Amino acid sequence: MLVLDQVLENGTEHAELLPATNDNHGGVIVDMEEAMDSEVFVTSLRASISRWRQQEGFWYHHAEPNYLMLVCWISETTSTIPANASHRVSIGAIVLNDKREVLVVQEKSGRFQGTGVWKIPTGTVDEGENIFMAAKREVEEETGIETEFLEILAFRQSHKMFFEKSDLFFICMMRPLSFDIQTQELEIEAAQWMPFEEYAAQPFAQQHELFKYITDICLAKVQGDYTGLSQIPVTSFFNDKLSCLYLNSRDLNNYLASSDQA
Amino acid sequence: MLVLDQVLENGTEHAELLPATNDNHGGVIVDMEEAMDSEVFVTSLRASISRWRQQEGFWYHHAEPNYLMLVCWISETTSTIPANASHRVSIGAIVLNDKREVLVVQEKSGRFQGTGVWKIPTGTVDEGENIFMAAKREVEEETGIETEFLEILAFRQSHKMFFEKSDLFFICMMRPLSFDIQTQELEIEAAQWMPFEEYAAQPFAQQHELFKYITDICLAKVQGDYTGLSQIPVTSFFNDKLSCLYLNSRDLNNYLASSDQA
Repeated sequence: MLVLDQVLENGTEHAELLPATNDNHGGVIVDMEEAMDSEVFVTSLRASISRWRQQEGFWYHHAEPNYLMLVCWISETTSTIPANASHRVSIGAIVLNDKREVLVVQEKSGRFQGTGVWKIPTGTVDEGENIFMAAKREVEEETGIETEFLEILAFRQSHKMFFEKSDLFFICMMRPLSFDIQTQELEIEAAQWMPFEEYAAQPFAQQHELFKYITDICLAKVQGDYTGLSQIPVTSFFNDKLSCLYLNSRDLNNYLASSDQA
Repeated sequence: MLVLDQVLENGTEHAELLPATNDNHGGVIVDMEEAMDSEVFVTSLRASISRWRQQEGFWYHHAEPNYLMLVCWISETTSTIPANASHRVSIGAIVLNDKREVLVVQEKSGRFQGTGVWKIPTGTVDEGENIFMAAKREVEEETGIETEFLEILAFRQSHKMFFEKSDLFFICMMRPLSFDIQTQELEIEAAQWMPFEEYAAQPFAQQHELFKYITDICLAKVQGDYTGLSQIPVTSFFNDKLSCLYLNSRDLNNYLASSDQA
């Protein structure tokens, strides 16, 4: 912030304006296709900003590895620029086989490193990745086990996690399609199929509220009649691309079947 | 990107290093408490980076309105810096009263501006805000109606929305606690209680897959036995703060009651 702000504050007046087009939010988009000499660029940027700006200044909107977006709301009205991304999304995968064994790992780094705790595979949903696909990918990367996604059993929203951002953690129920474990060397210390009761009896799973709920939900799924949210593809209203809708298919289908008969 | 990168490329050698501490991810954190002359800063930054960097360069990690984070992974191993936030989170609120009327609005801007479409209140979940609270807030801001959150009926994940980020849209079922509508002037053209059948019969609700599902889920909720995910507070495992767990409480409680009796 120091560099750019202080550069901007020493305004100069005579220079070419940068190529800019109006966007849909009442602002301008500067799209520079070619690199420019940095001194010429700075001079042009100063002149352009003097032109665009009234009261407000530019602020950082967001940044990705290869670009930084600065925005400036020129209108008198309240900014309606879409908000920056606010959440990371992660998954935990419960993979249960027919012997009621759960696929568990010990991690080489992170919160559980060196604790001896056996945990379910977890990981971050990549940019542009569907939640159910991330669950399949993480399980396969960490253990070599192929799986089919069944349902999101529950999810947790928490705040002020990494870099003050929020986190959505989706607990996914998976059915294994293969059984021979191949541990990923980089992140995983060990992996195994563990009787579910043994997993649930670990002190950490007993002591922490969230893990206790996960265990109960899992038992309700296996022994009872628990239904989470399964996924169906739907066409996006905004851009005609496929997106994923997660819903309680059992309850919806029961209703649709009964209303067809009525 | 142009400014900072090109500044950095003209390295100088003799200067004070910036005050830096090692972080938990094998990198360094530069925490400057006071503004610095921009030329001195640039010179110091160049010298500091030469010191810190081996092969890799810095890249933009993320930015918020008042700061920009650049990161540089110095170790030989793969970076384990937590990912940047990847998703915006938004809500749609279905508020149904005892007469089976749904609370609907016409918006002054956005996709539905001037279309005459009556839609449910929608909005973005703020930084650090719980999803169920965002649903209450948006309904009250747009229509003045107070509500109680009941359940998340379904949610949709879509990609490449605003600024290439992904979006999670949670469809929330709410019970109204007040009934006199007071329309917010800035964003809302009109608001009313509309018979649910009339809402569902609008062409847009018939033509678009997502809206058709929402209508069916809503009917299944009112006329059938549809259960979504309700929320309970849980203590976070990582930082002892309260976070929100969303789960199928009906199915879990049924299971727990039956296993108590067994």
